[in-house]
Amino acid sequence: MDIAIIGASGYAGGDLMRLITLHPHTDLTCATSRKLDGTPVSLDQPHLKGFVDITYTNPDVNDIDADVVFLAVPHTVAMQYAGSLHERGIKTVDLSADYRLPQGIYEEIYGVTHTAYFDAPYGLPELHRDAIKKASFIANPGCFPTGAILAAAPVADLAQTIIYDSKTGVSGAGDTVSETTHYPNVADNINPYKWTAHRHLSEMQLEISRLESRASVHFTPHLVPVTRGILTTAHILTERPVTKDEIQMRYRHMYRDEPFIRLQTPKLASVRGTNFCDIAFEVEDGGRRIVAVSVIDNLMKGAAGQAVQNMNIICGFDETEGLLFPAAAP
Amino acid sequence: MDIAIIGASGYAGGDLMRLITLHPHTDLTCATSRKLDGTPVSLDQPHLKGFVDITYTNPDVNDIDADVVFLAVPHTVAMQYAGSLHERGIKTVDLSADYRLPQGIYEEIYGVTHTAYFDAPYGLPELHRDAIKKASFIANPGCFPTGAILAAAPVADLAQTIIYDSKTGVSGAGDTVSETTHYPNVADNINPYKWTAHRHLSEMQLEISRLESRASVHFTPHLVPVTRGILTTAHILTERPVTKDEIQMRYRHMYRDEPFIRLQTPKLASVRGTNFCDIAFEVEDGGRRIVAVSVIDNLMKGAAGQAVQNMNIICGFDETEGLLFPAAAP
Amino acid sequence: MDIAIIGASGYAGGDLMRLITLHPHTDLTCATSRKLDGTPVSLDQPHLKGFVDITYTNPDVNDIDADVVFLAVPHTVAMQYAGSLHERGIKTVDLSADYRLPQGIYEEIYGVTHTAYFDAPYGLPELHRDAIKKASFIANPGCFPTGAILAAAPVADLAQTIIYDSKTGVSGAGDTVSETTHYPNVADNINPYKWTAHRHLSEMQLEISRLESRASVHFTPHLVPVTRGILTTAHILTERPVTKDEIQMRYRHMYRDEPFIRLQTPKLASVRGTNFCDIAFEVEDGGRRIVAVSVIDNLMKGAAGQAVQNMNIICGFDETEGLLFPAAAP
Amino acid sequence: MDIAIIGASGYAGGDLMRLITLHPHTDLTCATSRKLDGTPVSLDQPHLKGFVDITYTNPDVNDIDADVVFLAVPHTVAMQYAGSLHERGIKTVDLSADYRLPQGIYEEIYGVTHTAYFDAPYGLPELHRDAIKKASFIANPGCFPTGAILAAAPVADLAQTIIYDSKTGVSGAGDTVSETTHYPNVADNINPYKWTAHRHLSEMQLEISRLESRASVHFTPHLVPVTRGILTTAHILTERPVTKDEIQMRYRHMYRDEPFIRLQTPKLASVRGTNFCDIAFEVEDGGRRIVAVSVIDNLMKGAAGQAVQNMNIICGFDETEGLLFPAAAP
Repeated sequence: MDIAIIGASGYAGGDLMRLITLHPHTDLTCATSRKLDGTPVSLDQPHLKGFVDITYTNPDVNDIDADVVFLAVPHTVAMQYAGSLHERGIKTVDLSADYRLPQGIYEEIYGVTHTAYFDAPYGLPELHRDAIKKASFIANPGCFPTGAILAAAPVADLAQTIIYDSKTGVSGAGDTVSETTHYPNVADNINPYKWTAHRHLSEMQLEISRLESRASVHFTPHLVPVTRGILTTAHILTERPVTKDEIQMRYRHMYRDEPFIRLQTPKLASVRGTNFCDIAFEVEDGGRRIVAVSVIDNLMKGAAGQAVQNMNIICGFDETEGLLFPAAAP
Repeated sequence: MDIAIIGASGYAGGDLMRLITLHPHTDLTCATSRKLDGTPVSLDQPHLKGFVDITYTNPDVNDIDADVVFLAVPHTVAMQYAGSLHERGIKTVDLSADYRLPQGIYEEIYGVTHTAYFDAPYGLPELHRDAIKKASFIANPGCFPTGAILAAAPVADLAQTIIYDSKTGVSGAGDTVSETTHYPNVADNINPYKWTAHRHLSEMQLEISRLESRASVHFTPHLVPVTRGILTTAHILTERPVTKDEIQMRYRHMYRDEPFIRLQTPKLASVRGTNFCDIAFEVEDGGRRIVAVSVIDNLMKGAAGQAVQNMNIICGFDETEGLLFPAAAP
Repeated sequence: MDIAIIGASGYAGGDLMRLITLHPHTDLTCATSRKLDGTPVSLDQPHLKGFVDITYTNPDVNDIDADVVFLAVPHTVAMQYAGSLHERGIKTVDLSADYRLPQGIYEEIYGVTHTAYFDAPYGLPELHRDAIKKASFIANPGCFPTGAILAAAPVADLAQTIIYDSKTGVSGAGDTVSETTHYPNVADNINPYKWTAHRHLSEMQLEISRLESRASVHFTPHLVPVTRGILTTAHILTERPVTKDEIQMRYRHMYRDEPFIRLQTPKLASVRGTNFCDIAFEVEDGGRRIVAVSVIDNLMKGAAGQAVQNMNIICGFDETEGLLFPAAAP
Repeated sequence: MDIAIIGASGYAGGDLMRLITLHPHTDLTCATSRKLDGTPVSLDQPHLKGFVDITYTNPDVNDIDADVVFLAVPHTVAMQYAGSLHERGIKTVDLSADYRLPQGIYEEIYGVTHTAYFDAPYGLPELHRDAIKKASFIANPGCFPTGAILAAAPVADLAQTIIYDSKTGVSGAGDTVSETTHYPNVADNINPYKWTAHRHLSEMQLEISRLESRASVHFTPHLVPVTRGILTTAHILTERPVTKDEIQMRYRHMYRDEPFIRLQTPKLASVRGTNFCDIAFEVEDGGRRIVAVSVIDNLMKGAAGQAVQNMNIICGFDETEGLLFPAAAP
């Protein structure tokens, strides 16, 4: 199958290209970049030398032809491509935020008018596999929501309050330089940001509410001196005292057959470069607080990996095709 | 004044020696180490070469003579020294946990029998300055409790629930090697530990309760790839809706005259190597959650710096003597 | 083919297990560890959960049965296994130093008596592919020599002096904790060690001399705050002035058909987790100094990856089988 | 004495301000910044809150009035200020490259015309103390040359070839964001740059030649994932075999009375935030190579610290005034 990646020169684009070269049924035929139009991909991303030998292009949206398209562009840019792709029935996984929320919420949170809205399933296969299977356009979840929702999903209906305290690596900020990503500002530091109002909070609230939960959901992200990975600590206050055993049963039950979720001590090194989400939890004495912790690679299960997982589902491949490899640890 | 440091070869000991060399009224006459008895200090801690020219010794407790003694040894070891020093009326600042808690709580939390218990003020000058002034033996607070308590103190009586999510540098684990501190296990990683039951939680609960608070207090620490520094994110659920203005007034009021507390964006680099605690807060929309963040250098305001601050108070020096210098940032 | 890994619990062992799970023709049937005998591999190395489901064992050497054995144990331990494996004709790749040097040099450099010496080809395929093909026991090169020799090989016969200044990640020190690898001693630091007398120097000198070079070879390694990777800066003083063009021709010619050598700007991120060695060079004005720089992943092309490459050769597989995947960058 | 810092908002400017607050005889009266004109210094550099309470200004050069001026601006900008200051006899320490080299060499290396040239002593007190004492305008050395020259000076006349392989922290690149300093490009990486032609090489060559040396001098810098500090490995090939004893005598003799040079194992942590340069060496078997290693803080002995040291000399203060404090290690 021919694959096109729109916005291939960013970090998520780079990991998509890496995954496409590892996938047995796909062929990368188009990698677009506005700023690098005409540059060989492997000059820009030398780790792909020997694997990707095409050149960045910058085609008109209607000239993009492929069996599957990945939109790895920022929000508001994705919607400029989505309409045409959707109409032409081209299978698409959108890594931006443009189709993750109902239109009204989206417009309020992102402060823009949506010019090409339609419904698309939220591409978290662990919660929405059936809806994804039937669709051809998937809204790939945000990196923070992926780890946060998976950490609390098995106990969401027990929760009164969920406070997500997330720690993210710097690659989440993309490959564009800024004060925020200037090495001396990051190294030996921990930077909380958007302490109470990060845009990803809406995705978390929406998904948690869909799990029959009445919990109030809060979220504070922190930038940490790590390149890849998000560790989310979910502080969950429960409506009634719980026991470790019943909580364990819930996690095991929900994730029993999930190929990318492993219930074990969460370490970033265990998931780096892979599509896994490792989760563990503890119950505080008295049973009124659960601390659940998840780790993901923000560029993989938090972006490119989950996008390929969604592609596998909508294309009828085995869901794990091209994604089942362990991390290189340490 | 002559100063003795018991347990000088550790990280807190090293910073105490650094501070004593900077202090105009003190002279380091004794630095003890069991394992390095006979070794010149500057061979062990080369950054002190040219400043500390004495040799580690290992004297009997009753032979320790000084105007002020710092106990920079682990809990249970400190109590072996404390009795003699206390009886002989030697001014002492104990950096261990041995005198921070009422005896019963201490013995339960630390799982040991206290063999030399007496009351000592909790050496957090911002809350207990008057008690410290009258004492000669001070229980220097734990590193986590220092940052955590200061972050929430101004609003403790408004809180229903306080969840401390702390991120600490590796020097907090001391200079003893372990799996936990093995570089490949720390770098590019975030490690939560003692998710619900860290011993420092008791200090936090006790101090918060002393602030006329009925809040339930929780604490989850994380090891981050940073050498020095603790950033504590205090997620505070309030009993009633609050406004940003009233909260701001409370922080300003409580810390108005505090020489080591600065209300500004918390960055580890701003406090590294210094005795400052920088604090800021945000109020979540609706006023039911306050996110307060504090940063300290765990070896300074979290250990050696606060110990010297306490020494200044009990010796009648200006409280800031030898401690008023800015960080070298970045 | 059945694979046994002796000493599987270390970092090189971990990467060997990862590679065996990725290889289409191999099956891991035995992973030994003295200290973890009886422990499931995936409890010790959680990144392998779902991929390796066997348990560490500690069999007698004569009971080890497999088509290929990897010796991932320290020097002097490898020779305890090698004799039996060699006699029984079991294909073996030895990652230790025990068979890399002629017996006399080995005994002098390592200060021990070799109790089971025999000749084995030096497993650097780029230089000794033919000899490796004919052998069944291969001495896998050291991590530093691999990067160093490959950096200078094309110009070794032009060199008067080669000074290797290498920068290595901490995983090269293994998974055993020590002062050297204690996080606060590594982070924000650069530590030269064995400034003039690292044991790997002998391998470099021997291999460079085999390239018809009369150069004197020197080597100073540095530990840097990186987990994986070695960057070697080869400062090459030439016997006569050279031009950039002739040097470029030499590099291109020698490495034209090498599947794991790429002539491009060396970045650790481009080779991390992979078997690639990326090399570039510059000629100093006047043509009397060449600066050649190579990067490898010390656990891959510097250990496990090259070992699998050697296994492929001695087993008659395609040399790149199971090893052709790009790095996850950044 | 009143101090003005031109270009105070950069990293060197920040450290100059820190040092001025620690100095007993100086008062910061002017801190200029073009882009931050009107901003309180402590808003921009929060670590200085409570120590520096002035606001950045942007005065005309002729309106700058102070007893001492520090020029912490880029090369070519410094010369726009130097003429006026020099004519008006205002004591000045220039941290840029504009007055470090003879005019002809400067213009060739930097590719610009010097519009306000005059002779100024090279401000390396260990080599040029007498010349500095008599001057009022000092050319503060580059960060790399400082560490490199001090490492080899005692044996320069014995050297045939000196190859400097330097490893520098990222703060040396300044506070301006770029691809080079983007966290994911630096972390877990080692980046050689200007492999054979860094501009600082000229300073090294000039100073080494002034030490009666005929050595050819080469220099390759590397960016390492460290914020502050330069470690320089000097690979020195000698004209004749040397012994460890004679070399030791030379280092001890030359640096016997130097207040900021310590002959001990070089660790970045030992000098971080301070004006010290720690140096050690080894002689290779056979005596034909010396490996000398120096560490400095690039912003201190490599910039602001040395500038204050020079200020002390030209103002007649004790040379160590305000600079004698130990590092906070680890």
